[in-house]
Amino acid sequence: MIIIGELINASRKAIKAAIEAQDAEAIQKVARDQAEAGADYIDVNAGIFVGQEPQYLKWLVETVQQVTDKPCAIDSPDPKAIEAALAVHRGVPMINSISLEKERYERLLPIVAGTDMKVIALCMSDEGMPQTVEDRMKIADKLVNGLLGKNVKVENIFVDPLVQPVSVNNSFGMEFIHTIETVVKTFEGIHTACGLSNISYGLPARKFMNQTFMVMAIARGLDGAIMNPLDKKMMASIIAAEALAGRDNFCMEYLKAFRAGIFES
Amino acid sequence: MIIIGELINASRKAIKAAIEAQDAEAIQKVARDQAEAGADYIDVNAGIFVGQEPQYLKWLVETVQQVTDKPCAIDSPDPKAIEAALAVHRGVPMINSISLEKERYERLLPIVAGTDMKVIALCMSDEGMPQTVEDRMKIADKLVNGLLGKNVKVENIFVDPLVQPVSVNNSFGMEFIHTIETVVKTFEGIHTACGLSNISYGLPARKFMNQTFMVMAIARGLDGAIMNPLDKKMMASIIAAEALAGRDNFCMEYLKAFRAGIFES
Repeated sequence: MIIIGELINASRKAIKAAIEAQDAEAIQKVARDQAEAGADYIDVNAGIFVGQEPQYLKWLVETVQQVTDKPCAIDSPDPKAIEAALAVHRGVPMINSISLEKERYERLLPIVAGTDMKVIALCMSDEGMPQTVEDRMKIADKLVNGLLGKNVKVENIFVDPLVQPVSVNNSFGMEFIHTIETVVKTFEGIHTACGLSNISYGLPARKFMNQTFMVMAIARGLDGAIMNPLDKKMMASIIAAEALAGRDNFCMEYLKAFRAGIFES
Repeated sequence: MIIIGELINASRKAIKAAIEAQDAEAIQKVARDQAEAGADYIDVNAGIFVGQEPQYLKWLVETVQQVTDKPCAIDSPDPKAIEAALAVHRGVPMINSISLEKERYERLLPIVAGTDMKVIALCMSDEGMPQTVEDRMKIADKLVNGLLGKNVKVENIFVDPLVQPVSVNNSFGMEFIHTIETVVKTFEGIHTACGLSNISYGLPARKFMNQTFMVMAIARGLDGAIMNPLDKKMMASIIAAEALAGRDNFCMEYLKAFRAGIFES
């Protein structure tokens, strides 16, 4: 499982305050905690700072990479902000995210074209939120083929089929999950990644439902997640599901996690 | 989800003692507790009492059905014991289970032939334990077609693909799960049911792993389980997975379970 740690996001109060105060230590603690908990990428988002996003995003990348070797997931739709961040990034970053929304697509495609960067391809277009597997695959086909056509390798693409709440429509969970399966079958070697928490919008016991949905998605081929790696129960669910899905040789990671006490909470 | 409550099994110490003492109250408490917790069938097993199995199985059915309207899952490979139990059973029972082992198959097929009883068809033959999807489907094909040929309706058949431990072979989890999916696609209207706890044999944190595997199997179409309905965390996992799989209109069962406190433990 490729885990994108989502906590360094300026829409969170503490992160907004730390960015405004240029409090590197506060940011670095969150970066280090996520890396130690198993994050493969550290997402950085300064989207709420209109006008200052490029400078803040650059500062976040520098600040994070002072304390961890993990690459960043650069979380912005703005090419200026992304380029400012890329100018200082070490290693191979992830771009979070391109979509089929015309402006976003046209501005971000040249940035990833011909590079080895990882890129999340979000199944969203100007026609609104997709509902069915077919809606999503139409967008995914165009996005993936557009990226391939610009010499982005299939194994660097992470399709995000876009989760919608099961409280709104009973079928939204399975439409999402069947899209994961269809994407994995359609584009050999591709990855999938998404934030899952929208699935439980409007329902109680959201954390439990989110964990359950993660396990269901892994059973159908999900191999990436934008999430809080400090959520021990979610990490436990992922580690158990990976072992059960045959992705953990001799259950070594499962046993390691057990010894570390992750199943106790 | 069709839940077969597994607790009234003479291989459990307290049940063995209750049967020997003909302690109806003790048995009835376990029956009532399981029914109240959501069991659709109450499994009864007196298999350890060689020679006395027919009389004890009959007594178990009578004793259980004095306190609940739920039908029993009659858990025996012995036609004499099954017939003794059927003689007193009210409603439509389940037979747990027929298999492709020659003796078992030939002795049980006439009992279910032409009836409306439910029957679990266990993917086991005299050639040993199946390992791959293909192994299991070979057995399932013969079993299901054998039952259909004797006028057992497809919707009364519950295929059990037989879980084997993921600690023995990394791929055993997915071989099982892909069999569930293949069975459901191959025989329209059929059910699947199984005990899942073998999956975690030889590993720590077994309960958590069993819950996780249940959720993965539901994501692929499992709709029956032989289990302990008093295990609140397992029931919570099932209820959440069913809502996410689109099998719970307006998430009513999920909300009901939340109000009953099932997600709190």
